[in-house]
Amino acid sequence: MIIDCHGHYTTSPQSHQDWRTRQIAALRDGASAPPRPQISDDQIRDSIESGQLRIQRERGTDLTIFSPRAASMAHHEADAAANEVWSAACNDLIHRVCGLYPRNFIGVCQLPQAPGADPADCIPELRRCVEELGFVGCNLNPDPSGGHWSGPPMTDRSWYPLYEALVELDVPAMVHVSSSCNPNFHATGAHYINGDTSVFMQLLEGNLFADFPTLKLIIPHGGGAVPYHWGRYRGLAQDMKQPLLTEHLLNNVFFDTCVYHQPGAELLAKVIPVKNILFASETIGAVRGIDPETGFHFDDTRRYIDGIPWLDQHQRAQIFEGNARAVYGRLSSQLERQSALQTA
Amino acid sequence: MIIDCHGHYTTSPQSHQDWRTRQIAALRDGASAPPRPQISDDQIRDSIESGQLRIQRERGTDLTIFSPRAASMAHHEADAAANEVWSAACNDLIHRVCGLYPRNFIGVCQLPQAPGADPADCIPELRRCVEELGFVGCNLNPDPSGGHWSGPPMTDRSWYPLYEALVELDVPAMVHVSSSCNPNFHATGAHYINGDTSVFMQLLEGNLFADFPTLKLIIPHGGGAVPYHWGRYRGLAQDMKQPLLTEHLLNNVFFDTCVYHQPGAELLAKVIPVKNILFASETIGAVRGIDPETGFHFDDTRRYIDGIPWLDQHQRAQIFEGNARAVYGRLSSQLERQSALQTA
Repeated sequence: MIIDCHGHYTTSPQSHQDWRTRQIAALRDGASAPPRPQISDDQIRDSIESGQLRIQRERGTDLTIFSPRAASMAHHEADAAANEVWSAACNDLIHRVCGLYPRNFIGVCQLPQAPGADPADCIPELRRCVEELGFVGCNLNPDPSGGHWSGPPMTDRSWYPLYEALVELDVPAMVHVSSSCNPNFHATGAHYINGDTSVFMQLLEGNLFADFPTLKLIIPHGGGAVPYHWGRYRGLAQDMKQPLLTEHLLNNVFFDTCVYHQPGAELLAKVIPVKNILFASETIGAVRGIDPETGFHFDDTRRYIDGIPWLDQHQRAQIFEGNARAVYGRLSSQLERQSALQTA
Repeated sequence: MIIDCHGHYTTSPQSHQDWRTRQIAALRDGASAPPRPQISDDQIRDSIESGQLRIQRERGTDLTIFSPRAASMAHHEADAAANEVWSAACNDLIHRVCGLYPRNFIGVCQLPQAPGADPADCIPELRRCVEELGFVGCNLNPDPSGGHWSGPPMTDRSWYPLYEALVELDVPAMVHVSSSCNPNFHATGAHYINGDTSVFMQLLEGNLFADFPTLKLIIPHGGGAVPYHWGRYRGLAQDMKQPLLTEHLLNNVFFDTCVYHQPGAELLAKVIPVKNILFASETIGAVRGIDPETGFHFDDTRRYIDGIPWLDQHQRAQIFEGNARAVYGRLSSQLERQSALQTA
């Protein structure tokens, strides 16, 4: 079985995104928020069957851990109250996708973060998604300010109540920024990668997992710059008298495989232990074209993992399936529940 | 000959840095600035011979392209006028090092940038360093705000007068941030790498080299996250209908080899054309310890380049020497001048 742990609903019906645009405009103008749009099952089916489901079939992957579009979280474009309504709408839509395709998609939620807001305020929506909707994780934005990085690092105690809830619910967080309102940072070409790199270094400097030994964080986009600079990070940890990274971070931090060329995927698998690598493609996402050097889509990351010559069958199965089941503690039982639903 | 294109004077005499601290305090308190400290040739010799020169000899490198300490530029800690005095002091010290060791060091200058200040105001100091002190390049901070990224991207027209001066003087700029006052960004573990990644993406999005076809920019620290995500960048360029990166950027953008482990250095040499790679170690710098996995210093990057099995003698010579001579247009003649000085 091949589990893609990083898919966003980038193809959601246009009326969904349009509603967010009107919601933000209403907030700006002091008007009352527009009602949530009616979206039919057929609209959802169309968007999924021509998009993510088609690609699953083409590439031979089985299950996508599916969350709302990351760039559209845009926590910096509204306030906490509006983001709460928006997150609920996004998460409900993911829930409907999982209901329609219970063997192909399993949910991960967006959180109603906002610049300056208390992360603890996200716990009710996290709890609703996990306990009522059967979601198995969340996306956690380390920079709700959208490229200004005006909040505290992720080792700050203000995040702790949220971490307590994650641990209690046994769900991991993917640390994932949203769009950027800073013209210095292109979203998918700089802000995403910088977010990954910055948070890893925050964790390296701190000692978060002494306080939360079972908390699990996934750093997407192949871990940002981290595996490429693995020597720098090992060296910085040593200079700072921190433990070896394998002990200090690698029981809790995992990297996905959203690296869009063979040499990059091979570097990842060379320096990061296999147990810390989760298969992912972020399809349909940041890069949509076909690589003229290979004739295949840049984001067809399965080919890169298949093409790493030194991985044996067991290691490949860990990356494709086993590690996702281990990191997403609720995945296996939720998948059983969803599959039973379809069979019934 | 082995030329290290990225060395900072991190071991400068303590009185130099102390003076900057007092200068900033005086500025804050509205007091008059303290006088520049007296630093003897012996103090400089001590700091260099026990530091950078010793390491050159130990590692068998010949020449360091030497600039003031990057973290101490701290453009965000003072105003343009104070930074002008500080930059001059830093650059004069580099000039003295090059005068004392004319075959071992060649100068690159710090610029008196400041948050919100016009980059054109840096031209007089750039000109002084190149025309009077024999410097062959400059360090250019893409984020004088020190981690707030409050200024415009490097493709903005406000930078153009400075680029015109660089082109006219035939000197490249190394795009190098300074320290970070944003607690989200550890300086050498996040801010440096993010700066590299962000600027590369700014250049990818823009079309700067259509306006400055002979401008040369060096992106340090192995190009940040860029080579690891080379497929992402090729794919983003393609999605944006930009030309191939080889045509769009690689006549003007170069990467150094400050990547502190063998797999990272190999990735760099695998995906980036040899002509775009300049040997560098950033010694004595970000990572100072010995890698327990190899028994050698993390920043002993010569070993990694020597250890790339597929490079032939000619390619290795390009990385170690030829590319630096090509990118730093004034290097060869300046080195001749300095060597004659020592012989005389």
